[in-house]
Amino acid sequence: MKKQQSSTQQTTAITTSDSDKYVYSFDEGNKDMKMLLGGKGAGLAEMTRIGIPVPPGFTITTEVCELYNKNNKKYPSEIDQQVREKLTELENKVGAKFGSKDNPLLVSVRSGAAVSMPGMMDTVLNLGLNDETVKGIIKNTQNERFAYDAYRRFIQMFGDVVLEVEHNKFEHALQKRKDAKQKDSNHVVNDTDLGANDLKQLVADYKKIVREETAREFPNDVHEQLQLSINAVFGSWNNPRAIAYRKINDIKGLIGTAVNVQAMVFGNMGENSGTGVAFTRDPSTGEKVFYGEFLRNAQGEDVVAGIRTPQPIKNLANAWPKVYKQLVSVYKTLESHYKDMQDIEFTIQRDKLYILQTRNGKRTAQAAIRIAVEMVAEKVIDEKTAVLRVQPQQLDQLLHKQLDPAAKKKLQVIAKGLPASPGAAVGQVVFDAAKAHAWAKEGKKVILVRTETSPEDIEGMHASQGILTARGGMTSHAAVVGRGMGKCCVVGCNEIKVNEKQCLFTVTLPNKQTQTIKEGDFITLEGSTGEVFVGKLSVVEPELTSHFARLMQWADKIRRLKVRTNADIPRDSEVARKFGAEGIGLCRTEHMFFDADRIRAMREMILAGNIEGRKKALAKLLPMQTSDFVGLFRVMKGYPVTIRLIDPPLHEFLPQEEEEIKAIAEELDVSIGKLKDKIKSLHETNPMLGHRGCRLTISYPEIAEMQTEAIISAAAKVIKEGQSIIPEIMIPLVGHVNELKYMREVVEKKAQEIVARENVDMEYKIGTMIEVPRGALTADEVAQYADFFSFGTNDLTQMTFGFSRDDVGKFIPEYIEKNLLEKDPFEILDQTGVGQLIKIAVEKGRKAKHGLKIGICGEHGGEPSSVEFCHKIGLDYVSCSPYRVPIARLAAAHAVLKESR
Amino acid sequence: MKKQQSSTQQTTAITTSDSDKYVYSFDEGNKDMKMLLGGKGAGLAEMTRIGIPVPPGFTITTEVCELYNKNNKKYPSEIDQQVREKLTELENKVGAKFGSKDNPLLVSVRSGAAVSMPGMMDTVLNLGLNDETVKGIIKNTQNERFAYDAYRRFIQMFGDVVLEVEHNKFEHALQKRKDAKQKDSNHVVNDTDLGANDLKQLVADYKKIVREETAREFPNDVHEQLQLSINAVFGSWNNPRAIAYRKINDIKGLIGTAVNVQAMVFGNMGENSGTGVAFTRDPSTGEKVFYGEFLRNAQGEDVVAGIRTPQPIKNLANAWPKVYKQLVSVYKTLESHYKDMQDIEFTIQRDKLYILQTRNGKRTAQAAIRIAVEMVAEKVIDEKTAVLRVQPQQLDQLLHKQLDPAAKKKLQVIAKGLPASPGAAVGQVVFDAAKAHAWAKEGKKVILVRTETSPEDIEGMHASQGILTARGGMTSHAAVVGRGMGKCCVVGCNEIKVNEKQCLFTVTLPNKQTQTIKEGDFITLEGSTGEVFVGKLSVVEPELTSHFARLMQWADKIRRLKVRTNADIPRDSEVARKFGAEGIGLCRTEHMFFDADRIRAMREMILAGNIEGRKKALAKLLPMQTSDFVGLFRVMKGYPVTIRLIDPPLHEFLPQEEEEIKAIAEELDVSIGKLKDKIKSLHETNPMLGHRGCRLTISYPEIAEMQTEAIISAAAKVIKEGQSIIPEIMIPLVGHVNELKYMREVVEKKAQEIVARENVDMEYKIGTMIEVPRGALTADEVAQYADFFSFGTNDLTQMTFGFSRDDVGKFIPEYIEKNLLEKDPFEILDQTGVGQLIKIAVEKGRKAKHGLKIGICGEHGGEPSSVEFCHKIGLDYVSCSPYRVPIARLAAAHAVLKESR
Repeated sequence: MKKQQSSTQQTTAITTSDSDKYVYSFDEGNKDMKMLLGGKGAGLAEMTRIGIPVPPGFTITTEVCELYNKNNKKYPSEIDQQVREKLTELENKVGAKFGSKDNPLLVSVRSGAAVSMPGMMDTVLNLGLNDETVKGIIKNTQNERFAYDAYRRFIQMFGDVVLEVEHNKFEHALQKRKDAKQKDSNHVVNDTDLGANDLKQLVADYKKIVREETAREFPNDVHEQLQLSINAVFGSWNNPRAIAYRKINDIKGLIGTAVNVQAMVFGNMGENSGTGVAFTRDPSTGEKVFYGEFLRNAQGEDVVAGIRTPQPIKNLANAWPKVYKQLVSVYKTLESHYKDMQDIEFTIQRDKLYILQTRNGKRTAQAAIRIAVEMVAEKVIDEKTAVLRVQPQQLDQLLHKQLDPAAKKKLQVIAKGLPASPGAAVGQVVFDAAKAHAWAKEGKKVILVRTETSPEDIEGMHASQGILTARGGMTSHAAVVGRGMGKCCVVGCNEIKVNEKQCLFTVTLPNKQTQTIKEGDFITLEGSTGEVFVGKLSVVEPELTSHFARLMQWADKIRRLKVRTNADIPRDSEVARKFGAEGIGLCRTEHMFFDADRIRAMREMILAGNIEGRKKALAKLLPMQTSDFVGLFRVMKGYPVTIRLIDPPLHEFLPQEEEEIKAIAEELDVSIGKLKDKIKSLHETNPMLGHRGCRLTISYPEIAEMQTEAIISAAAKVIKEGQSIIPEIMIPLVGHVNELKYMREVVEKKAQEIVARENVDMEYKIGTMIEVPRGALTADEVAQYADFFSFGTNDLTQMTFGFSRDDVGKFIPEYIEKNLLEKDPFEILDQTGVGQLIKIAVEKGRKAKHGLKIGICGEHGGEPSSVEFCHKIGLDYVSCSPYRVPIARLAAAHAVLKESR
Repeated sequence: MKKQQSSTQQTTAITTSDSDKYVYSFDEGNKDMKMLLGGKGAGLAEMTRIGIPVPPGFTITTEVCELYNKNNKKYPSEIDQQVREKLTELENKVGAKFGSKDNPLLVSVRSGAAVSMPGMMDTVLNLGLNDETVKGIIKNTQNERFAYDAYRRFIQMFGDVVLEVEHNKFEHALQKRKDAKQKDSNHVVNDTDLGANDLKQLVADYKKIVREETAREFPNDVHEQLQLSINAVFGSWNNPRAIAYRKINDIKGLIGTAVNVQAMVFGNMGENSGTGVAFTRDPSTGEKVFYGEFLRNAQGEDVVAGIRTPQPIKNLANAWPKVYKQLVSVYKTLESHYKDMQDIEFTIQRDKLYILQTRNGKRTAQAAIRIAVEMVAEKVIDEKTAVLRVQPQQLDQLLHKQLDPAAKKKLQVIAKGLPASPGAAVGQVVFDAAKAHAWAKEGKKVILVRTETSPEDIEGMHASQGILTARGGMTSHAAVVGRGMGKCCVVGCNEIKVNEKQCLFTVTLPNKQTQTIKEGDFITLEGSTGEVFVGKLSVVEPELTSHFARLMQWADKIRRLKVRTNADIPRDSEVARKFGAEGIGLCRTEHMFFDADRIRAMREMILAGNIEGRKKALAKLLPMQTSDFVGLFRVMKGYPVTIRLIDPPLHEFLPQEEEEIKAIAEELDVSIGKLKDKIKSLHETNPMLGHRGCRLTISYPEIAEMQTEAIISAAAKVIKEGQSIIPEIMIPLVGHVNELKYMREVVEKKAQEIVARENVDMEYKIGTMIEVPRGALTADEVAQYADFFSFGTNDLTQMTFGFSRDDVGKFIPEYIEKNLLEKDPFEILDQTGVGQLIKIAVEKGRKAKHGLKIGICGEHGGEPSSVEFCHKIGLDYVSCSPYRVPIARLAAAHAVLKESR
C-alpha cells in the first residue's frame, strides 16, 4: 500500500494486521503506517528508514491505546514484554542502560495520533532519572548543573502529567528558590542563574511536593516511571481537552494515540551542543535558500522562549562546518523525499547532529506559489500537485494591501469586528459618505465609519480607503459592497459606539477607559482579521507575480466549474476580467439607481399615484440603464452576463432623516406631508421578508418592462457592433412557481417586442434566483419556467437559519465563542442545512429539466469550502466578487483534484 | 360497483367499457355512472330508475366529448345514428315529434360533467322551434304569447351559445321593442307586458341580428339545431372559463362533459302550471319540515329573479292538493334514497309534476348538525356519516356572534380586510387601548381601531368587542390574540388610513369620496368575511345545542389526533377546556410580561448592565410567573401543558414614543439618554430574524432559569395538592442542534435543582419548536436532545416563503387576486412547500428517536385542511386557539373517515 489510506479503511486494516505485534522499533515502520504508529511515530520511522540521523526509539501502537481505554486501563502482559524487548534493543543501539548508575539511558515518552492534535495530549521528557542514575549523567557529562536541571525538569513534568500534581506548586518552589538566591546575591535571578547546588536542592523540594500532594514517594524505579508515563499518555487520549479538540476539528475514526519512546538527546550539554529550526526554502518569499536559526548550548524551548537571540543558520557553515554539511545533506534528502519544503527540528549533542522532527513547512501565499511553481520546473512535483500546494484562501494576501507584519506589533488593537473584506487601510476618520467623497477629492485618505451603511453611501465608500461599521454581518450592505470593490472592510464592530451627529466614535478599552476617536483622526483597519488600530501603520502593496499567473493557468486547466463575478458596473467587471472571471453571475441593477440623477427618477416613480406616472419616471431611467448594460456587455466580450431585476424594497430609495425629507420634498416638488405619508406607507417591520424582489415587479410590472427593454436594446446594440452576447435575465426572490410564471410572461413579452423592434437575431435566457427556502423545496415546479437557476445563498442562509444578516452581529460572535456554531454561516456555506436545500433544488430542478444550468451568486461563491461543495453537487458555475475570482478558480481546481484522490 | 369510484379508476374503467354505446336513455343509467354520464345525467337516470317523474331524455357520454375535442371537433357517424335512435325513443315516450308542425317535441340541451361546474359550460333550452313548429306549439297550448316567448328565448340562447352572437345585441333589440311600446302606451313596460305580437316581431328582429352578425340564416332545421347545440356544449368544455375553473378547483382526471338532451316542460303554460324549489328539511334550522317556495305560471328563472314573490310551499297543500301529495311522496323517496336533505327543483306543467333536479341541499351549520344527528336517530345514516355531514369550518358560525343575515343587506361595506378572527362586533370606534379599556368600564361597547397592535394593547383588546387594523396578516399580533380571545378581528385592511393622533380613520369609497370615521362613531365588523360597515347592525348570539354536543362526542370517538389549545392564562384555558381541549400545546410566557407591574420588572432587567442586575429584576418576576403556572396547571387538571420559554426580542418591552420614553425613564429612575441608548442598541432591521427565541436565552440564560424555576415549582405545588402534571418546557426558534443542547443543559440543571429542593416525585419534558427551516432540515440532529417537537407553522411559513407576517398585507391580497397564490399560507398550511419541510422533520425526527411525540401549535392547528394534513403525516396532536378547538376535533375525525374511504 503506497497511498495513505482513509481512516475507515485503515481501521479495518488494523483488525486484520498481525495482532500479536504491539511495539515497533523506528526501523520497523514507515510513513504509511500512520494509523497504527501515529503521525509522529510513522514520521520517525520514515526518517530512520531513509537514513536520517534520528535518535533511536520505538512506538507502542494505537491499538494498545484502544485496548487500554476499553479494558479499564489495563492491557495484556505480552505488551509489557514487547516493550521490555524493544527497550533492550534501544539500550543496545544507544550503548547505555536504562536505570544504570554508570551509563544511564534517558528517554522521552510522547503521544502521537494519526492526525496531529498539537498540545492536546501528554509528554514526559528525561525519563529514567533518579538519585542513582543522575550520578551516571554527571559522570558522563561532567556537568552537574546540566544533570540536576534535567532531573528537576523530569520530576516537574512527571509530577504534573503522570501524578497530577498541580503545576503551579512546582513553579512556586522554583520561585522561592530564586527569591532566596536573590536575597543573598542582591541582583535579579533567572532560571539560568541557579547553580548545580540550587537545582539539587530544588530536586529535593520537588520530591517533597510530590510526597505531600500524592501521599507517596516519587517513584525511583525507572521501569515504573516508564510504565506510568505510557499509561498517562494513553489515558490523555480521553481527557476532556482532547475529546473537545477532536469534536471541533471533526476528527473521527481514530482508535487512540500511539506512544513514542525515544532516546533523549540534549542540545544543552555545553558549547559543542545546540539546537535549531531549519526550513529547506525561505518560508516568507519561497526563494530556494537554506533558512532557519540555531542556538548553542540550548534546548528547543529556549529558541521558542526568545530569551536568547538565535543565529541565522548560514552562520553554521563557518561555526560548525561538519554539522552544517551534514545538515545540508539532510535538507536535500528530506525535501526530495517528501517533495515539499520541510520545517526541520534538530539538536546537536556534542557535535553530533540529530533530527527530531520534519514536517511540511508553513509559508506565506507568495512563498507557497513560488515554491510550487519552481518545484514543477525542478521536476520534483507535477502541476496538479503544485496547484494543491497553494490554499485558495491564502490568495487574499496577494490581492490586497497588507499591514506590514513587523509594524503591526507597534499599535494596540482597540476593537475587533467581523473581517468582512480583506486588505489593510489607513486613513482619516469621516462619518458621512459625502464628506468621504469631498475629502478624497482633496487628496486625503479617508476611512468611512458608520453605524451601518446604506445604498446611498456607495460613492463615499468608493472614495474611502476602508470602511468600518458598528453593525451588520458578513453579508451586510457594507460587507457585500466592500468585497465587490476589493476594499478593506470591518463590520459588526459592536465595541464601537458611533455618533454620526457629533462626528465621533467611542470605544471602551480593556482597562474600562473610554477612548474617543474624532473626525480627522487616523485609524488603521485590518480587513482579514477585523482589527481596528488607532494611528497609522505601514502597509505593503499587493503584487501579482509571473509565478501566480502560471499557477492559475494550471488551475484553469484542471477545474470543471466556471467562475463568474458579481459586478454591477463596467469598472468592477474590468477588474474581474483581469482576475479571470468568465462572465457576470450577478449584476444588481438597483445599484445603478443610487446616482444623484437616477435616484430622483426612482423617487418620482415611487411617488407617482398611478401607472402612467410611474411609466413617465421610468422612461427617464431607461436610457441610463441601457447605457450601463451596453458598458457591461462590451467589457464582458461575449461572456454570459446575468442581470437581476430590481430587488430591494422601495423604501430604500426614500430618505429617512427629517432634513433630507424636507430637501427631497422640495426637489421633487411634492408636499412634505405626501412624502412622509409615502415613507410611512412603505415602512416594513421586516423588510427582508417584505415587498421586494419579484413581489415588487408583480405589483409594478412596468419596472421589469423598463429593465427588460434596457437589457435587450443594449444587447441589440452590441450585437450590431459585431459582438456576441446572450443576456440572462434573472427574476429574484421566487418562492412559488406562479411568481416566476407571471414574471416570465411579462419579461418575455417585452423582450420579444424589443427584439422585433431592433430587428436583430438574438438569444436571451430567463431564469431565477433560488434564495427562498420554498423555491428550493419546489424547484421541480419552478424549473418548468426557468432557463437557469442561480442560488442566492445570502438570502437562502438568512431564511433557512432565520438569521437577519443585518442583526446577527448581536449573537453570532457569542454563538461561535460558545461553540454553538463553528463558523459564521454567511461566510462559510452551511452544508448541513442550507446545503441540503441546495441539493434538493439541484436534484428536483434537473429532474424536471434535464441539463438545467445552475450556478451560485451568493457571497459563498468565493469561499473555498463552499466552492468545493458547489463542485461536488454538480453546479455549472460559481460567481463571486471580483477580488475573490482567483480564489474561486483555485478552489474549483482543488475540488477536482481532491475528488480524484 | 356500488361505491362511487375515484376519477382515475373510472377513467380506466371507461376505456374498457362497451365502446360501441355512446348514448344512454335516462332509464338506462344510474347514479354510479357519473364518470360516463356526468353528474346531471347520472342524477336524472337515477331519479328515472327509482320512479321519480322526470321529463324523459337521453345522455351523450363524456367519451364523445373527448372524441370530439381530440379529433378536431368531429366524431364517428355512428354517434349521430345513436342520437337519432334515442331521439325517436324520446318522441315515442313524449308522444310528440321533433320538428313536427302539429305536435312538436321541444328539448333542452345541457352540459353535465362528473364534477359540478356551475355556470361554466353551455345550455340551450326550447330547442326544436322554428317558424313551422311554433305553430304546433300555439295549436297545442292555445297560447300564442307563450309560444313566441319560448321561440324568441330560444333564438337568443342559441344565438349566444351556439352562434356566438354578442348577448347584448339581443338585449338591445328587446329594449328597443319595449321602448317603442312605452312610447305608445305611455307607461313603464316590462318583459311581461309584451304581447304575442310584440314577441313575434321580436323573433324577426332576433333573426335579423343573427343574419347580420353571422352572415347566415338562423337554422330552421331542428336536427341541425340539435347537432350544433351538442357540438357547442362539447366545445364549451374547453372554453377558458371552464379550464380556469377546473384549475382553480383542482378538478383533474375528467375527460369531458356529457350532454343531456331532455324533453322540455314548462311552468309558464298558464295558471295550471308553475315552478318551485323545495327542501326536504328546513335548511336554516334543520327542523324536519317541508320547506320551499313556488310560483304559478312561471319559469325557474322567474323565482330566482325575484320580480314576483313566491308562496311558501305549504300553500300547495290547499292550492294544488294532488300535486302537493305527489311532491310529498317525491320528498320522502328522494331523501330516503339519497339519505340526505335534498334541494329539489320542480315544474308543474298543466297540473303534472316534473322533477328537474335533486341534490344535497346547502344548509347552515346549525341545520347541518341537527339534520345529521336526527338522521342518526331516524336510523337513516350512521354516526360516522353524520360526522362527515358537518364541515368543520362551519362550526365557526356556532361559536361566535353572527351578523343577522337579513340586517347585513342594510348597510354598505366600506372596506374589506383579512378575516382574521370570526364573529361579528358592533361598537364605538376608539384608537388607543387605554381608552378602549376606560370606555368599556363605563359600559360602552367599543371597537379598537389601530394601524397595528402590539403586546401593550392586550388589555384594551380584551375590553373591546372587536379589533380592526390597517396592517398585518392572518398571523399578525392582532389576529393571533383576537383568535385566542375568540374576538372578532379584521386585519390588514389596507383601504383604511388610521390616524391615531387625530383619533380618526379615513376610507376612500368606490365613488372616490373620502369618508372619515371619528372616535365614538359606531362601526360593525364581520370577522368571517373581513367586512367593515359604518353604523350598527343587529347581531345574533351563538348557541351551543345538545345536537352539537352529541355530534362532537361521535367525532371524539373517531379521531386519532389529540387536540390541545394555545392559551396563556387560566381564563382562556378554561374556555378551551369547555370546548374540549385536551391540554395546552402552547403557552406563550411572554404574554404574561405585559401587565403593568411585570413589564416594569422586565424593563429593569433589560436595562441592567450585568447579570446580577438582571437576576435581581428576574427575581421580582418569579413569584408572578409561578402563580400563573399554578393557575394553568390547576385548570388543565392533569392534561399536558407545554410552556414555551420567552420568545420575542427584548425591544418589544421598551417604549417607542418620545413621551412614553420620558415617563418610563422617570418610573425606572434612569436617564432618558440611557433608555434611548438601550432602545437604539436593541433596534433591529428585521426583528423576526433577530435576537429572539432561544438566541435570547443563550445570551441571557438567567431568564430561562427563572422561567424554569417558575414552571417546576408551580408543578411541584399542584402535585402536592394531589393533582398530576407533567410540564413540557419548550425551547423556541431552534435552528441548530447545539442551540437546543445548550438550552437543554441550562433548563435541566435548574429543573433538577428545583425538583430536589421541592422534594417531589415529578416528571418533566424538554422539547423544541420546529419553526426555523434549518431546524426541520436537521431534525435528526435536533431530535437527539428533544423529548418532543412542536411545529410553529407561523414562523415556519414566514421563513419558508420569506413572507413577513406583518408585511404581507401589502402583496398577498394581490397574489390571490392574480391567482399566484390560491390561499393565504398563513391561513391554510402550504402543504407543497412548508408541508414538505414538516414531513422531512417528522421522518428525520422519528428516525433518530423512535416514537418522538410531535404536534403543531401554529395557527394552522385549527384549520381543517391543515388538520387533515397533520393526521396524514402522523402527528400526535394539533393545538389551536380555544375557539377553534371544536373545529379541530371535528376535522381530526373527518381526517380518519376520509382516510378509511
